[in-house]
Amino acid sequence: MKIMVINPNSSVEMTRHLEKELVKIKRPDTELRVVCPDCGPITIESNYDAVIAASCMLPLVKKANAEGYDAIIIACFSDPGIEAAKEVSDILVLGIQEVSLHVAAMLGAKFTILTPLQKRVPAKEYEVRRYKLEQALASVRPLGMTVAETDADPVRTKERILEVARQAVEEDGAEVIVLGCAGMVGYAEEVERKLGIKVLDPSSVTLKVCEGMVDAGLKHAKRAFYATPPAKLFKGSPCNA
Amino acid sequence: MKIMVINPNSSVEMTRHLEKELVKIKRPDTELRVVCPDCGPITIESNYDAVIAASCMLPLVKKANAEGYDAIIIACFSDPGIEAAKEVSDILVLGIQEVSLHVAAMLGAKFTILTPLQKRVPAKEYEVRRYKLEQALASVRPLGMTVAETDADPVRTKERILEVARQAVEEDGAEVIVLGCAGMVGYAEEVERKLGIKVLDPSSVTLKVCEGMVDAGLKHAKRAFYATPPAKLFKGSPCNA
Amino acid sequence: MKIMVINPNSSVEMTRHLEKELVKIKRPDTELRVVCPDCGPITIESNYDAVIAASCMLPLVKKANAEGYDAIIIACFSDPGIEAAKEVSDILVLGIQEVSLHVAAMLGAKFTILTPLQKRVPAKEYEVRRYKLEQALASVRPLGMTVAETDADPVRTKERILEVARQAVEEDGAEVIVLGCAGMVGYAEEVERKLGIKVLDPSSVTLKVCEGMVDAGLKHAKRAFYATPPAKLFKGSPCNA
Amino acid sequence: MKIMVINPNSSVEMTRHLEKELVKIKRPDTELRVVCPDCGPITIESNYDAVIAASCMLPLVKKANAEGYDAIIIACFSDPGIEAAKEVSDILVLGIQEVSLHVAAMLGAKFTILTPLQKRVPAKEYEVRRYKLEQALASVRPLGMTVAETDADPVRTKERILEVARQAVEEDGAEVIVLGCAGMVGYAEEVERKLGIKVLDPSSVTLKVCEGMVDAGLKHAKRAFYATPPAKLFKGSPCNA
Amino acid sequence: MKIMVINPNSSVEMTRHLEKELVKIKRPDTELRVVCPDCGPITIESNYDAVIAASCMLPLVKKANAEGYDAIIIACFSDPGIEAAKEVSDILVLGIQEVSLHVAAMLGAKFTILTPLQKRVPAKEYEVRRYKLEQALASVRPLGMTVAETDADPVRTKERILEVARQAVEEDGAEVIVLGCAGMVGYAEEVERKLGIKVLDPSSVTLKVCEGMVDAGLKHAKRAFYATPPAKLFKGSPCNA
Amino acid sequence: MKIMVINPNSSVEMTRHLEKELVKIKRPDTELRVVCPDCGPITIESNYDAVIAASCMLPLVKKANAEGYDAIIIACFSDPGIEAAKEVSDILVLGIQEVSLHVAAMLGAKFTILTPLQKRVPAKEYEVRRYKLEQALASVRPLGMTVAETDADPVRTKERILEVARQAVEEDGAEVIVLGCAGMVGYAEEVERKLGIKVLDPSSVTLKVCEGMVDAGLKHAKRAFYATPPAKLFKGSPCNA
Repeated sequence: MKIMVINPNSSVEMTRHLEKELVKIKRPDTELRVVCPDCGPITIESNYDAVIAASCMLPLVKKANAEGYDAIIIACFSDPGIEAAKEVSDILVLGIQEVSLHVAAMLGAKFTILTPLQKRVPAKEYEVRRYKLEQALASVRPLGMTVAETDADPVRTKERILEVARQAVEEDGAEVIVLGCAGMVGYAEEVERKLGIKVLDPSSVTLKVCEGMVDAGLKHAKRAFYATPPAKLFKGSPCNA
Repeated sequence: MKIMVINPNSSVEMTRHLEKELVKIKRPDTELRVVCPDCGPITIESNYDAVIAASCMLPLVKKANAEGYDAIIIACFSDPGIEAAKEVSDILVLGIQEVSLHVAAMLGAKFTILTPLQKRVPAKEYEVRRYKLEQALASVRPLGMTVAETDADPVRTKERILEVARQAVEEDGAEVIVLGCAGMVGYAEEVERKLGIKVLDPSSVTLKVCEGMVDAGLKHAKRAFYATPPAKLFKGSPCNA
Repeated sequence: MKIMVINPNSSVEMTRHLEKELVKIKRPDTELRVVCPDCGPITIESNYDAVIAASCMLPLVKKANAEGYDAIIIACFSDPGIEAAKEVSDILVLGIQEVSLHVAAMLGAKFTILTPLQKRVPAKEYEVRRYKLEQALASVRPLGMTVAETDADPVRTKERILEVARQAVEEDGAEVIVLGCAGMVGYAEEVERKLGIKVLDPSSVTLKVCEGMVDAGLKHAKRAFYATPPAKLFKGSPCNA
Repeated sequence: MKIMVINPNSSVEMTRHLEKELVKIKRPDTELRVVCPDCGPITIESNYDAVIAASCMLPLVKKANAEGYDAIIIACFSDPGIEAAKEVSDILVLGIQEVSLHVAAMLGAKFTILTPLQKRVPAKEYEVRRYKLEQALASVRPLGMTVAETDADPVRTKERILEVARQAVEEDGAEVIVLGCAGMVGYAEEVERKLGIKVLDPSSVTLKVCEGMVDAGLKHAKRAFYATPPAKLFKGSPCNA
Repeated sequence: MKIMVINPNSSVEMTRHLEKELVKIKRPDTELRVVCPDCGPITIESNYDAVIAASCMLPLVKKANAEGYDAIIIACFSDPGIEAAKEVSDILVLGIQEVSLHVAAMLGAKFTILTPLQKRVPAKEYEVRRYKLEQALASVRPLGMTVAETDADPVRTKERILEVARQAVEEDGAEVIVLGCAGMVGYAEEVERKLGIKVLDPSSVTLKVCEGMVDAGLKHAKRAFYATPPAKLFKGSPCNA
Repeated sequence: MKIMVINPNSSVEMTRHLEKELVKIKRPDTELRVVCPDCGPITIESNYDAVIAASCMLPLVKKANAEGYDAIIIACFSDPGIEAAKEVSDILVLGIQEVSLHVAAMLGAKFTILTPLQKRVPAKEYEVRRYKLEQALASVRPLGMTVAETDADPVRTKERILEVARQAVEEDGAEVIVLGCAGMVGYAEEVERKLGIKVLDPSSVTLKVCEGMVDAGLKHAKRAFYATPPAKLFKGSPCNA
């Protein structure tokens, strides 16, 4: 099967890194392409960034449909533009937040999302409501580090993940931790072992579930919420029309 | 006070029509400017349209801030890009759905949103959840007419609004009807009189509430959910960066 | 327009103080009358007080209707008798809790209500559910001071508001603070500046929103929840029949 | 044990009728007194009526406490003034709606409340939320008859109860019917037999549960929600101060 | 009336102890039989234990029906097999968790359940959702003692109950404490007195409410959720078929 | 990978039929074993059946753990004993309801569950709450046919599925249909094509998602909700201890 993974962040470096991780775990019979848009923010750290990134990313969704892919994964934890992407796609579209939150809900009583900064907490809570999973949310907890800082200081990042995950377990009743940012990936195994809980890397989990869903012939319904948009005039020439 | 009303639909004609209606009801001391973006969809009838429109509209939000406006109204019932707009704005930003739903919740036990087509119902339900007002929602009911059809056939539009509003009242317990599309505006008074309920025209309601909120010095909090996005590199040159 | 503000507390002194504050901010074309009932509790600090106050206040609601007012504001944060008042009124009735909670929900992800004493916390949570806004509630937090103490010791009151608001922001994720008692009013600006959040004085916010709503011709629906009560025999001669 | 049943409706006739019914089912060792206030509305059919009735009824609550009763039952299905009554009482206070809804939730998956008129539906839904039982509510359904009509026409009342209860069962999934008005009492057994469901007469159910709760030494908590109101000045001389 | 109390734990000693407590408080006219199954776990401390216990206990439910009992009480706080028991019973079946949580909801704004160990917290939260009472739940708090330890060390048990109940009151807003384990029973009165709240012993509360409900002729609905199971072939010969 | 599929129904014929279907779609590298318990009900049509079936099935869960399987699928749509199974298992356990409901929530705005008989509707609604997915539920709708009838009359079964699915789409807003009974399987494709929605066969969907989850190394958390039960004495010798 052919899966296109779209990183809505326009950073080529981050995209290559993601590709390297996913290639390791894909099934041998999966043809994987990991891409990012030519325009838009280098990293997504606000709703503003997400809107621009979504508009820049949508042409890639159309392209995957045109080129015979079987499924598309939107690989940024805020799932920017996920509803619009499903509208313009006839093939399965999955967001890494969407899949990892549903999987988290199956693996324990409640889950906690780790996010870089305190000011992103309400956005994450809002996104959990988007997926109607608020009943299974233990908490959203910030590391108190920017994305750049998690990249620059892996030692402190690991320490903070352990510390915050422990608080989530002890104070909020979390049994599953969802790593809500690419910069946190790579420490899951150690945290799992030390705390006796489950820690999910959203991109990896989504790729494997996506392979299963493609095998099962699953697609999103096109009747109403994700119906193909009516054709119409778009003025101007943004990169995304 | 100076208020900029942004119509995220790029139709100049619709924008002029909206301006004419709002000028009639604004306070004498309100300086009103009603604008639309130069790019983006002529009308917004899907989440895809909304994402593109949002990205095209955000420069106008920044402009209103730069030019000393006191408040911004996003005048399309799906409130496209409302969170992003609040992030990039230091002045008050209100969406016409946001305000009209909160006002509706104050005027009766439950409200119903009228929307043009059946396939938009889940999107409207989703938006009500966005504002955490799902407990006050009686129903979302479609007219079964496209926006173009409501424009072209006012007689049938009025008939359908009356008919569907009556169903909402009798079957769903609605006490307030929110007209969820510009094409439905202008029939409120007659429906109110015939059914003994309240019917809200979101743009008008929002302008008047906005004037009061500006008077009261109210702005959205900038601490977390609507915090100013961090400065960063945007690749490419979309109209919206 | 003519607005009657009813203070359900029977304290003439508190009522004159409220009048002074509201006169400062009303529109020049607003004719304002601020009154309190002749009977009932001097201050409202329990549900018992609220029931008595409501029964004493309802004749004033009828009076405002008879004397050609355009709107009524019930100016006590527990909104005593608000549903009954809407039933016996054909003109718009707004409670200061009702309006300030809806406005708070528009200005940030979640709001916190400050209340004088710990034992009033469940009552405030109950009232938030009454307005179906529990999804937007961060917390109710007590100052740990009686109303009398907040009146008597402004320095400590300001300190406590700052302290408790900071806890609400840091521990509960509040972005908007609603001052749930007249004795707390007057410190909003300083708390806003120091914590970077929004602080609402319910009476002021409600007056300005009310002016806008009257301008927009808005009234509550009279079909069911707020339908005019059927005429009937009242035995005895309580002050309120 | 001594139980005072307070009918907040001031109708002596209705109160004597209620007494006759309850005397039949009380335990031999229960000393029962059924009373109504000297002032207030003859029947309660609006929130306005409920507020006045509550203020008129509260002196009886104090009296029951002073005279050594073990428990008080507020016997009107809207439970007027229930929170205030619990505040001014040290002995157990139960509302017949409160108890019958909780019992209904134990006897089947979902319950339906029958209410006289369509316009009371939102008030009943609001009251169910007051008791935090909205998850167990199938529906509120009106008979389409006033209280006076149910009294005057028992044949039609029985027909309508059967008809509406059947709709509740078949269309809303109700398994338990709560008769939400004194005028509907007396037909429970026949409806139960014909529809294979449970039908609750709130007054009877409450008396029997109350006897059990008194035996068990149960009272409401006095710490916060139902804390004794602080002593204070009441102006004027309403019948209720 | 004849009530069979079934202890799903197979410990005869615990069952005799329970009998002794309940005999003290039963009405003189109540004929009480307290039994436990011949098979299954000695104590129930997991969902696994609960499933086995439920299957072992169901024959006793059938027996109570066959022998003319009026009601059955399932006397283990996790209410194992309660739905199945109601299905196979034509007489009233009550679980001690079910009844005590509904009673708790009537006696204060919110309740807290005490449970022996941290790891049982999610199970208790799940059970509260089963009864649709999550809106009234303040918290579930563990003592941090096994059932065996609560039996062995009454002094420390009392201390921990006081300490944890105080935290529930002060940090979670609990007004009613439900003792979620047989090992905690016997300290209610002292905790009530010291903290000014209500503390419920589920078995005692349930027996008294059950007597009242039997008097009132109440049974669960047999139409759908608790409908009698269709007759069918059971393979093998487990003790429970 | 090695997956054990446990059919909690003790019917060998149904189990062989399920095996035939699953073998067709499993990955070549998946070693599949489909089994049923030696005891318990031939089919599961009540909570009573589910409790007995759960107790009979748990030894198979232990066996799969002992024999080196990678995952267990509980293949009956009511997911009997799922929590207990997760407790006694260190390897991944998935229920077909659990997985198909989460997948359904990803594929459309709301889903409807089809169930054989009206009287099973509350049980299904209860199970949706168990998985905290009630916000995504459009409805549970019965075919009005017993399991035996769906087996015996495929023509009518197909007609009814089409008819009821159409009602779910048009009246309840369903976009995804979950076939809540083995007897309904095999008609998914035709319903999908005729109604433009998605129809899920829970067993197939679960097998494919399970393969992906095993690949991803996912297991349920063992910290609290699914912690291994403490060792203890079991009296008697049920087949399940």
